[in-house]
Amino acid sequence: MSASVGLARVLEPEGVLPQAAWRLDARPEIAADEVRIAVERLNLDAASFRQLAEKHGGDGDAVRAEVLEIVGTRGKMHNPVTGSGGMLIGVVEEAGPQSPLGLKPGDRVATLVSLTLTPLRITDGLAGWDGKSEQVPAQGTAILFGRSVAAVLPDDLRPELALAVYDVCGAPALTDRVVRDYETPVTVAVLGGAGKSGSLSLTAARLAGARTVAVVINEREAQIVRDAELADAIAIADARNPVEVSKAVTEALGAPATVTVVCVDVPGCEHGAILATAAGGTVIFFSMATSFPAAALGAEGLAADVTMLIGNGYLPGHAEFAVDLLRRVPAVRRLFEERVAGH
Amino acid sequence: MSASVGLARVLEPEGVLPQAAWRLDARPEIAADEVRIAVERLNLDAASFRQLAEKHGGDGDAVRAEVLEIVGTRGKMHNPVTGSGGMLIGVVEEAGPQSPLGLKPGDRVATLVSLTLTPLRITDGLAGWDGKSEQVPAQGTAILFGRSVAAVLPDDLRPELALAVYDVCGAPALTDRVVRDYETPVTVAVLGGAGKSGSLSLTAARLAGARTVAVVINEREAQIVRDAELADAIAIADARNPVEVSKAVTEALGAPATVTVVCVDVPGCEHGAILATAAGGTVIFFSMATSFPAAALGAEGLAADVTMLIGNGYLPGHAEFAVDLLRRVPAVRRLFEERVAGH
Repeated sequence: MSASVGLARVLEPEGVLPQAAWRLDARPEIAADEVRIAVERLNLDAASFRQLAEKHGGDGDAVRAEVLEIVGTRGKMHNPVTGSGGMLIGVVEEAGPQSPLGLKPGDRVATLVSLTLTPLRITDGLAGWDGKSEQVPAQGTAILFGRSVAAVLPDDLRPELALAVYDVCGAPALTDRVVRDYETPVTVAVLGGAGKSGSLSLTAARLAGARTVAVVINEREAQIVRDAELADAIAIADARNPVEVSKAVTEALGAPATVTVVCVDVPGCEHGAILATAAGGTVIFFSMATSFPAAALGAEGLAADVTMLIGNGYLPGHAEFAVDLLRRVPAVRRLFEERVAGH
Repeated sequence: MSASVGLARVLEPEGVLPQAAWRLDARPEIAADEVRIAVERLNLDAASFRQLAEKHGGDGDAVRAEVLEIVGTRGKMHNPVTGSGGMLIGVVEEAGPQSPLGLKPGDRVATLVSLTLTPLRITDGLAGWDGKSEQVPAQGTAILFGRSVAAVLPDDLRPELALAVYDVCGAPALTDRVVRDYETPVTVAVLGGAGKSGSLSLTAARLAGARTVAVVINEREAQIVRDAELADAIAIADARNPVEVSKAVTEALGAPATVTVVCVDVPGCEHGAILATAAGGTVIFFSMATSFPAAALGAEGLAADVTMLIGNGYLPGHAEFAVDLLRRVPAVRRLFEERVAGH
């Protein structure tokens, strides 16, 4: 197991897995079960990019310098403040003879494991990036371990589009699984329903048979949901305000939601999600800004009998499932295309 | 709903629930649906007490001063570093006419909601506490809201004993529920099996029909588990070392666990728990030291198809369930009695 999860790449502290490590060895030479990727583009995690942009007041040069500093120091793009990373796309340069991933040189792939555990070396100083977007053109190399997940990019989606979908593909897959686990009719509230993971979660919930409400922060986002017909109902509320959120959801659905999905990448959304969920219901936290103690103690303090899930970014078949949602629902595909184009 | 969840007690910031608030109004006068408790004893959360003790190098006077400072500043015992609190016992002084909790003056109760959201005033300077134990004799007043949870102390358990059980009673109740949800034979690994929540979780798992392994840090803790016959197998491993933990669990059970319960109150146990769990299994995180991003990204990075639960401190009937475990298993009761006595 040691080699397959990347232990040999951990420089400090010793004995932890790559994601927990402070520093990885990002050298381009690969072991027998590793794969080397020639990087084309990074897609920074939304929470990470937001933190960097806010810290530097939108100064793109300063954001770029800090990303280079992080990657240079840690051997991976692992934001030490948010604890989050992102993903990348590139072309397979070399696959070790014992790699189980089935990749071959020339395959254009997206890595579906986080940048927080992916050994990364940047060689172009990110010269092609203005520091003002999560999408980062980059040259360099990245390493995949034996036990990893990567998807060959589909023919019918542009790489940027596939990357944007893969970045959040755990959310619709887990939403689908949770909704189908209930044997009675299900209602689903998605906080942050206009965003990437939110719009896919709404779509997955509806296709699984749920009645849905999108909770969004303002009329502009409500219009996005309305135009794409993403949800059965729309409510405008601040996800950080528990009273406002629970009232909005309850009014839209006629009762608290069976399942609440948190896709808002700002801190403080735990209590609203819990209050908006019916007894016996489930809250799925997909935001990396989720506070574990706030959720655990919040549910206890509210005497709320709800199941709270840490959104796992991996489910078997999650990438194909998410891409298939775009194929099945053209309005969702248009939404992603507009977003990737920068609208 | 506003009054029942304590919104009127929130001083800053406005509009958040009491647990998320920086500062609460702890005045002893009660609203119509509130209850005032005359405090007898606080039981600090293990993670909180550990942080305070370590910060002050075991200096009890300094620990006491900081607890007084926190309660004086915030109007609640909410450790700003760990984000955790604890519980308290006391006697009902006054119950508002609209309180739904069914309490009356003179009832000796334990609050089953966290101290992180309980308005608290301390009036004796904690003069009876040496700052060296989680159990804090205290005088003052605490407030229960309309929507809250408190249990009248049972006749057959000393108050200190009941408090120690109630403090962790969510863990065995949720473990029981998760084990019974599987339709096939279940194995359960409990990280930190010798501790309070760990020993109750092991007991609940076994009574629900699971085969169990206790993972403990050293031979001393192994002896505790052995003496009380808490588990079917015992493994010594450092829960922060993913490779060690997963190897220990797999060897003890013959395969990874169906359910892994994390009861170790130190950071860095997420990856070991995930690696020790079989595909399709469940990890229940009860430690307040759990990092949400480490769990979410860890499972993704390990391509681990496991359900990850945030340990909810509330389930209907959880207090009675845990007390009943002590009645049914005398060895567990002895363990708690020894612990409360300070052994």
